[in-house]
Amino acid sequence: MEQSPQIPTARDKLLFTPGPLTTSLTVKQAMLRDAGSWHYEFNAIVKSVRERLLALAGLTPGSGWETILLQGSGTFGVEAVLATVIPPNGKLLVLVNGAYGERIVQMAQYLKIAHTVLRTPEDAPPEFPAIESALAGDSSITHVACVHCETTTGILNPIAEVGHIVKKHSRVYIVDAMSSFAAVTIDFTVAGIDYLISSANKCVEGVPGFSFVFCRRADLMATEGSARSLSLDLLAQLKGFDKNGQFRYTPPTHVILAFDQALKELEQEGGVIARAARYRRNHQVLIEGMTRLGFRLFLDPKVQSYIITGFHYPADPKFSFELFYRRLSEKGFIIYPGKLTQVNTFRIGTIGRLFEGDIRGLLAAVRETLDEMGVKILAH
Amino acid sequence: MEQSPQIPTARDKLLFTPGPLTTSLTVKQAMLRDAGSWHYEFNAIVKSVRERLLALAGLTPGSGWETILLQGSGTFGVEAVLATVIPPNGKLLVLVNGAYGERIVQMAQYLKIAHTVLRTPEDAPPEFPAIESALAGDSSITHVACVHCETTTGILNPIAEVGHIVKKHSRVYIVDAMSSFAAVTIDFTVAGIDYLISSANKCVEGVPGFSFVFCRRADLMATEGSARSLSLDLLAQLKGFDKNGQFRYTPPTHVILAFDQALKELEQEGGVIARAARYRRNHQVLIEGMTRLGFRLFLDPKVQSYIITGFHYPADPKFSFELFYRRLSEKGFIIYPGKLTQVNTFRIGTIGRLFEGDIRGLLAAVRETLDEMGVKILAH
Repeated sequence: MEQSPQIPTARDKLLFTPGPLTTSLTVKQAMLRDAGSWHYEFNAIVKSVRERLLALAGLTPGSGWETILLQGSGTFGVEAVLATVIPPNGKLLVLVNGAYGERIVQMAQYLKIAHTVLRTPEDAPPEFPAIESALAGDSSITHVACVHCETTTGILNPIAEVGHIVKKHSRVYIVDAMSSFAAVTIDFTVAGIDYLISSANKCVEGVPGFSFVFCRRADLMATEGSARSLSLDLLAQLKGFDKNGQFRYTPPTHVILAFDQALKELEQEGGVIARAARYRRNHQVLIEGMTRLGFRLFLDPKVQSYIITGFHYPADPKFSFELFYRRLSEKGFIIYPGKLTQVNTFRIGTIGRLFEGDIRGLLAAVRETLDEMGVKILAH
Repeated sequence: MEQSPQIPTARDKLLFTPGPLTTSLTVKQAMLRDAGSWHYEFNAIVKSVRERLLALAGLTPGSGWETILLQGSGTFGVEAVLATVIPPNGKLLVLVNGAYGERIVQMAQYLKIAHTVLRTPEDAPPEFPAIESALAGDSSITHVACVHCETTTGILNPIAEVGHIVKKHSRVYIVDAMSSFAAVTIDFTVAGIDYLISSANKCVEGVPGFSFVFCRRADLMATEGSARSLSLDLLAQLKGFDKNGQFRYTPPTHVILAFDQALKELEQEGGVIARAARYRRNHQVLIEGMTRLGFRLFLDPKVQSYIITGFHYPADPKFSFELFYRRLSEKGFIIYPGKLTQVNTFRIGTIGRLFEGDIRGLLAAVRETLDEMGVKILAH
């Protein structure tokens, strides 16, 4: 027997996180459908989503570029690229200044891909001379991987400048643009990008369940025979779409319907430029308000993205992050813990279906919570 | 600016497929929420889902069994088991009588796992003496994999009888129960199962986006160091849940909220026994009706499951499956193409939120469509 519908009456807590994000009601309502994953009506949506993603990336149809959707989280997408495109005798240079760079190193270890790592501190971008000499000094390096916005801190890495060096040395360039794609304009040609990965639940403002990879068809086809996993075989995934327009294995149909709607809403908002402006405004209101309350940013504003921002814990011993987090949650605002091992920070994301008024609401709740906790940081 | 909500007015086409399935409106409505994947409220739901799955499998808490959820489709779950638990010097025996058995062989090839295959025709269960002698004759075989309901044909393989042989030879037993779990009672102890995989969008009647694996904690812990992929590392996934109750990487939050509701509705229906009775009735009404229309079942009823049923194409040259499929779709019924290479068949699933009346509706549409096409099969 069917139950009576339970329409949510209260609004959800707002997510000030790097994703999953707060999404629009209409995006979620697009999931009130059951689509057949084999059916031609659903295949038409998959085709349209792939084409519109290409357009969103500024890549023209017929230019040889493809969008490949893959089930799972963004991490699955990044690992699929490494597991598919790096040949057995390949070697990967990974630029690391945070947890997501480290995760790529971990993937290389699991996949037994030869690799070398260039680390910079978590608050510092990659060092160009070091990349230059690593590539000049080691001709066995075939691929270079870099994270665009490292959400560990919110640092925005200079992918175009890095790309110039990578291309000067004719290596393959892989960019993890998980939290930046659709929020920051990326010029694939200028940056020399060969593979770029993002996911459904980031700045397109869909819900989580798949990642997507941009690459040139000819490049991917040339990697035939290297894939180290069936599920993560990106080339086989493209061939599957070629063959019959379908995912090889069951896709998250509802998540894809939500993403289709999210793309429509991104177009209605005015595309990446308009979305970037909204996020930038969110970020600006946030840092002004938090600074006024006495909080200190972890990063130098010069390298800080408008996607997610790290703040130092207040020095007052009365401050407990767990209590602060819980009290904000009770007020309807979910922030994000820090991920640094050396320094105590927490993070606030400014992406997703959030507007200036939501940020001001959060700031009021932060002020109130500090008062409740008796934390004094105003006189810093 | 937010758009006005678009509540679907028409009912979706019914899915007579092996999944994604037709789900209840209330399951889909559970997705009208944005949950924080790091948040304690969401973690509590994940914990509850894992515990209730264990109960559904007839495994008691404290018995050493665990449920591990993994992002992606069911295939990702099966590959995660192989990629994690088979040691570098292990060898897998795969029992194959359809496409899903072949897929396990493919995984072993990708993962470079030594393996041997016992094939039977697609309409025949595995042969016990052959398994017996394969295990007796090759002590290097460490693991045996078998698909429970092979949806290629709908055959239900005798996993308990196979398990007796596997356990007699003290090998590790892996069962792909994708489309049977929650529809067919499975006794883990009697069948000697060590690892069993199923997915969200099958007979629990959730939506697609993750798979789940049942295993003994101690067994999985003992596999440390073998994992061949970071994303598919099942042991690391369990350790992640142990550490903080979270998925290591972004989970499909909405899909999990839907699954939580689907589990509630399964409990309300009366559990696996009641659900099995509904599916069995669906299947019975289907085969009686289709037989009356002149269709012939592909399988011997003795090995036929009530999950999905294969039918031969009618011999009348006026029959075109493409047209038949499209006309049924236009009437609101989505059936499933065949997957056999030698014989022309199509398939009709009887799982998901489908009731006897839906099957009768489909039968009426089939009859009408045959009439429209001028196909005569009644006098077979």
